[in-house]
This record gives sequence, C-alpha cells and structure tokens, in this order.
Amino acid sequence: MSAEAKLRELGIQLKDVQVGDRPLIPWVLTGNLLYTSGSGPSFSGKKWSGQLGTDYTAEEGYEAARDTALQLLSTVRTALGSLDRVRRVVKVLGMVNSAPGFSQQPQVINGCSELLVQLFGENGRHARSAVGMAGLPGNIPVEIEIIFEVEPQG
Amino acid sequence: MSAEAKLRELGIQLKDVQVGDRPLIPWVLTGNLLYTSGSGPSFSGKKWSGQLGTDYTAEEGYEAARDTALQLLSTVRTALGSLDRVRRVVKVLGMVNSAPGFSQQPQVINGCSELLVQLFGENGRHARSAVGMAGLPGNIPVEIEIIFEVEPQG
Amino acid sequence: MSAEAKLRELGIQLKDVQVGDRPLIPWVLTGNLLYTSGSGPSFSGKKWSGQLGTDYTAEEGYEAARDTALQLLSTVRTALGSLDRVRRVVKVLGMVNSAPGFSQQPQVINGCSELLVQLFGENGRHARSAVGMAGLPGNIPVEIEIIFEVEPQG
Repeated sequence: MSAEAKLRELGIQLKDVQVGDRPLIPWVLTGNLLYTSGSGPSFSGKKWSGQLGTDYTAEEGYEAARDTALQLLSTVRTALGSLDRVRRVVKVLGMVNSAPGFSQQPQVINGCSELLVQLFGENGRHARSAVGMAGLPGNIPVEIEIIFEVEPQG
Repeated sequence: MSAEAKLRELGIQLKDVQVGDRPLIPWVLTGNLLYTSGSGPSFSGKKWSGQLGTDYTAEEGYEAARDTALQLLSTVRTALGSLDRVRRVVKVLGMVNSAPGFSQQPQVINGCSELLVQLFGENGRHARSAVGMAGLPGNIPVEIEIIFEVEPQG
Repeated sequence: MSAEAKLRELGIQLKDVQVGDRPLIPWVLTGNLLYTSGSGPSFSGKKWSGQLGTDYTAEEGYEAARDTALQLLSTVRTALGSLDRVRRVVKVLGMVNSAPGFSQQPQVINGCSELLVQLFGENGRHARSAVGMAGLPGNIPVEIEIIFEVEPQG
C-alpha cells in the first residue's frame, strides 16, 4: 500500500505548510535529497511546553514526536505534492528537551520512527540519532529534522 | 548582485582559513555538497566565552552567530575560491550554548541566517535547526555547521 | 596501506552488526553516501554510564569515543563488505554527554577522529562538530554519527 493510501486508511489529513518570507524555510531539495528544517509538535494544535524528565513522561514525549512527524510529513507533502514521491527515509535527528538525568530519548523519538514505518513500510526504516538537548525553541519538548531520498521529477 | 559583489558593498573582508594537519579539517566537498565543520565566533577576534541566558543575551548571541557565519563564509571562500560558486545554502545546524531555561535559540541563529540571505538572496534561504546545547568547545556561545550546494567545477 | 590491511596490522577484529527489525537501522546508503545511526561505546563490551565532567575525564571520554568509532566501523564493514569501499570520511557529529561547565568535547571526540585517520590516512580527515548534550540514551557518555562517501558498486 502506498504512503498516501495508508494515510487515508488511518484517517490522517496532512496540512499545507507555508514557506513564508523568512531566511529559514521548511525544506530544501538538493539533487534527490530533501532536507527538512527542524520541526516541533505543531500539527495537532495541542500546546506543548516543557522538558522530558520533569514536565513530560517518555509516553507523553512519544505523542509529541508522533505529532512532530505529522508536521514534517505535511512539509514533505507540500514540497513534493505527494508522499508517494518519497523513495526512502534516510536519516532522522531526534532532539529531546531533556532535564538532567533523562536518558530515554529513543523511547520518545520512536513516536516519529514508528509512524514513518507504518506509512512507508521497509522504505521508512532509517538511520537515526535520538539525543538530549539543554533547551529548544519556545521550550518545545521535541524537535526533529529528517532527510528523505525522493524520486527524480519525471 | 553576486555574493562577492555584495560582500564588497558591505565592506567585509573574508579571511584565508588554514587546513592544518589535524584529523579535523574545515570542509569536505563530496559531489556538489560542501560540508563545513562546526565553527564558532572566531572571525572578528573578539573573545567569546559563556552561555546564553546567563552570560549573554539573545542580542549578543545574534552578534556571535553573525561572526560565526563570517568565519564559515571564510571557509567557503577558501574551499571554492569564490562565494559565487555557491549555488544555494542547503542546511544550517545552529547550536547555542544554553543555560537552563533559555529557549530563544532561533533569535540567536538569525544572526547567521539573515547574513546568508543578505549575501545570497533567494538562494541563501535554507532549512535549519536552532537548538540548545549543554556545552560547547572552549565554552563558546554558538557553534554552527552548514551544508552548501555548489556549482560543479568547470 | 588499505584500511583493511591497517586494521589487521593493529590486530583489530570488527564485529558483524545486526540490522534487526526495528524502524531504526544501523545505516542507510543513498547514492554514494553512507549515513550511520548514532552509536555509543558498545564495541569492547565495557560498560559505560555517565557524563563527562563528573563521572568521566576527557581522557576516559577519548577511550569511549575510540570504542564508538570501532562500533561504527563495524557497521560500515557490515554495510559494504569491506572498509576499502570507503572513498573518504565526510562528516562526523560527535555528541558528548556533558555535565554543566564541561567544554573539552574536541579532546573527547579526537578518540574517534584519530582512529579514522590512522585507518584511512588522508581520506580519513573529515569535517566535524564536537558538542555537548544534556543527555544521551541509557546515559552513555558519547554518541557519534558519521557520513562516509563510498565507491560506487562495481
């Protein structure tokens, strides 16, 4: 099943992402690699603010990482027109806003990784680092950036 | 206006960057992607040491990030001979030495991002993550690495 | 001397790395770039847990980074069949679990960088960032990810 068909099956509606006019843009395509900007859990509209280990549990962080993945996939859809132009997920950098002593970054970022595999199957499996940051913009709990390999434009 | 012409207009003189003989080198070119090593605010000669949120304000951090960008552009000029061989800026990873609670990493890294757009125009707009680190080498306030897409050598 | 010959001279035996069935895999090859997942000091079997600056000195961190490099090279060997298919090391991101005030991340990550040059010679020199994290998975002291440029498959 294609990623777009799988999305429909799951009842997920991605959003249009605005490019805006700032120096920072949501994605850059170079050759057949699509680089995304680091994104936070801004898809569902739920407000997130705080660190893992004090304000949020790993389970809540998992939810934030899944929401972040949906934001990133919205970027990919806007960039490419269809998720089905993704050939594979290459690399995920999962950055977790971590209070001293928090070391369950992988369990948090799994919320992103598992969604990628659910949608893209074998091609969704990826190289990854999941690591703890001292702070993130606006005190979001999770920020993730992804590199995708895409089909050449026909 | 080309990036080199814009530099001249701004009265900025880039420096030659020494490759040295260490395992770590300032850049690697692979295909048409130029990867730079993480650099700090070592361009102007001003001494920087400390964290954002305690030792420096976001405004001071902005200045450090702009100085870091000038150091990175010096690397690019040394690597390519001319900034005009840059086809576009692909990805900026902006790492801010962040005291607990500091969450204005984007305002800091804008000091780099805005200079890139000033020089390269539309091609200077880039994917970016701006995040908070627990520490940086020599306690510098900012470290930035950039991936550039470059013109193939003629 | 080739990297494989150098390994034999040093008496180093790399390990087979299991791909497993998780969303996260040890490497992804896209074009002629090999991306590795972030890895820790899991090669020698020695147990590592703690931060630099409190639990470990920079010298101990150097040893952890060298052990991490051996784990990453095991991944490369498993991915490519031979280290001699590496054309060059492109980029190292060295992430050091850093207690407040620790700023010797470069001295730690040199344990990886110097081994790369010992094995690959001039082609082992690389762009790098060596930075301080607030936490790492399972409280490991060091996590490193590397991008390699590889020979096209014949």
